[in-house]
Amino acid sequence: MRILVLGGDGYLGWPTALHLSRRGHDVGVVDNFVRRQYDHEMGVDSLVPVLGLGQRLRVWNEVSGFTVESFVGDLTDAAFVDATLERFEPDTVVHFAEQRSAPYSMIDRRHAVYTQVNNVVGTLNLLYAIAERDPSIHLVKLGTMGEYGTPNIDIEEGFIEITHKGRTDLLPYPKQPGSFYHLSKVHDSHNIQFACRVWGLRATDLNQGVVYGQETDETTLHPGLATRFDYDGVFGTVLNRFCVQAVVGHPLTVHGKGGQTRGMLDIRDTLACVELALLHPAAPGEFRVFNQFTESFSVRQMADLVAGAHSGPVSIEHIDDPRVEKEEHYYRAAHTKLLDLGLVPHLLDNSTLRGLLAVAERHRDRVDLTAIGATVDWRRTASSLPTAGVALAR
Amino acid sequence: MRILVLGGDGYLGWPTALHLSRRGHDVGVVDNFVRRQYDHEMGVDSLVPVLGLGQRLRVWNEVSGFTVESFVGDLTDAAFVDATLERFEPDTVVHFAEQRSAPYSMIDRRHAVYTQVNNVVGTLNLLYAIAERDPSIHLVKLGTMGEYGTPNIDIEEGFIEITHKGRTDLLPYPKQPGSFYHLSKVHDSHNIQFACRVWGLRATDLNQGVVYGQETDETTLHPGLATRFDYDGVFGTVLNRFCVQAVVGHPLTVHGKGGQTRGMLDIRDTLACVELALLHPAAPGEFRVFNQFTESFSVRQMADLVAGAHSGPVSIEHIDDPRVEKEEHYYRAAHTKLLDLGLVPHLLDNSTLRGLLAVAERHRDRVDLTAIGATVDWRRTASSLPTAGVALAR
Repeated sequence: MRILVLGGDGYLGWPTALHLSRRGHDVGVVDNFVRRQYDHEMGVDSLVPVLGLGQRLRVWNEVSGFTVESFVGDLTDAAFVDATLERFEPDTVVHFAEQRSAPYSMIDRRHAVYTQVNNVVGTLNLLYAIAERDPSIHLVKLGTMGEYGTPNIDIEEGFIEITHKGRTDLLPYPKQPGSFYHLSKVHDSHNIQFACRVWGLRATDLNQGVVYGQETDETTLHPGLATRFDYDGVFGTVLNRFCVQAVVGHPLTVHGKGGQTRGMLDIRDTLACVELALLHPAAPGEFRVFNQFTESFSVRQMADLVAGAHSGPVSIEHIDDPRVEKEEHYYRAAHTKLLDLGLVPHLLDNSTLRGLLAVAERHRDRVDLTAIGATVDWRRTASSLPTAGVALAR
Repeated sequence: MRILVLGGDGYLGWPTALHLSRRGHDVGVVDNFVRRQYDHEMGVDSLVPVLGLGQRLRVWNEVSGFTVESFVGDLTDAAFVDATLERFEPDTVVHFAEQRSAPYSMIDRRHAVYTQVNNVVGTLNLLYAIAERDPSIHLVKLGTMGEYGTPNIDIEEGFIEITHKGRTDLLPYPKQPGSFYHLSKVHDSHNIQFACRVWGLRATDLNQGVVYGQETDETTLHPGLATRFDYDGVFGTVLNRFCVQAVVGHPLTVHGKGGQTRGMLDIRDTLACVELALLHPAAPGEFRVFNQFTESFSVRQMADLVAGAHSGPVSIEHIDDPRVEKEEHYYRAAHTKLLDLGLVPHLLDNSTLRGLLAVAERHRDRVDLTAIGATVDWRRTASSLPTAGVALAR
């Protein structure tokens, strides 16, 4: 299968491209390197050093014998999107190429507008290019479990059957996203569903949980194949950040009561889920949604798990929640569709946690303690970041 | 009350501004005149001639003695939005300032992207400006009944109580919009609801039906106070278009079976609803939704009503539906919240229809028959318009 991975230089896009390449697919990657630019803007860096895209594609070729073609450009550039589809002729497009940090989108007005325009326009351009060039291309789009928010009823996979005043219909699951980033994914989902309806496109929306881990079967083949590991307050996600905090002797900072419960998954399961989705494509005209996570944990539970797995002493500190979210809530979300396709999850056991802690330990001299704090305040319309330079006024 | 009407040079913004001015409010209007630019782009014009904004504001001052201040600029320019709020210090912002045509948004990729970016970014800038300058400003935002689509259950006003697997929650009503324009309004609704939640803003989302009519108590005070009347295939709405077709002896063109049922309202009720919403503001932090229409009709019923009210012979022609929509469907939508606040609807009776037909009759020499057809095809990613010049390639 010919597979184009958009955002193929990023945390998940890169190991996904390697995984699919090793399985014998013809893989191309598309990136504009804006993720690396965010590092410069934020004054932070990946904990694990990563090579440039060209360099690591060469390493991959040397290690595996496989060639992955790269396309450098921006999805908000419609001509680039169209030319790339024309040149590569993919069967499947896997779309990771969005600004994916909730705190980044909440820094200020400029970052909120950037996030929504970048994500929504990139996806619109892609939908048009697919419709015009080849509507049979299967779009596998990364969404987020955060689209649903935390309703007081069970979360289903994209759609819910509602019986109301004696009538019944299957309708899109109501969305209550918690940041301008999460909102951008909700906007995307609505746009993609519409494109499937009017143009007969086929799409799978992977509403992914919070990913942890850094090593996959392919990235560990050579140090030059490593993917990023973010632990900072803006791009770092909770479990990876806790491991870094544990290793450097920093208290694990739990936001508020820590009862916030989220669906989680191992980075290796991201790769497996994307592959399952593309091997079993949506039907023409079908917009389907898979909830892509394997287990649910509260933030407090995750802190306890990391504390239990770490060999040294670990303290846990509750700080004011910088986000506007329920600190305790009901949470039960369906996630059977990928299991039905054959997913065998890597669960969050002590060996996985120790592997994560070992990654953090190996690179502990690269940890910037000033970058760890959650400095973006949801209740304010503008936050400043300690590691970033002085931004020009809006 | 100090009220800023965004889009105050448009079909509904202009008469709303006059209505509120006459009621003794301090009114300012904001516009960038892009609606007039669409006329140039599409090669069409309002059936009823309208003066420039400066001219008609002078007429209004002469006729009424009231002064309405104008601000010229674009909501996608954040500095302009902020400076305008600083200067005018509104208690209420009434937001009509969006690209509001479904066919326009479906012309091609460029128009889809323009519509979503223009509408979403304008509203985001407004939310930030309100939050930063004065979160107590009440935002009255024009949404559309088209956000809901045509579900097979009753439509409620913004939220629906769902009981699912033994638990119950009040959740946002699921949205199934039918064009990139309608989608932009869904995106707005999600963004506004979030801003109310995180910043304590107060907002009323008026999910308006299809408006008919052209004359209000204020616009009829002087010919120079007229508002626009659109009958063309892109910006004209169904009932106004049928009246023009009847008057010029053109068959009333019904899309498909004509069973498409929509909520409708008289232009005078738009003004009354906006006023009721702003006189009874949302509470701080509240995001509320009113369904703003008074009666539901199918397209076929509307054609029959116009045929019945017109003095001459009228024929009805069914053409292929250029939209992707259900041509027959269940439709029952709640609309009690504005009635509870005191709305006394103008219903669609013969006298109203004859008034509309008289407007069309008065200006029948200005009708461009080539502009009437529905030339934007939902199933294509690019449509060309007979009245517009040749567009440059995407």
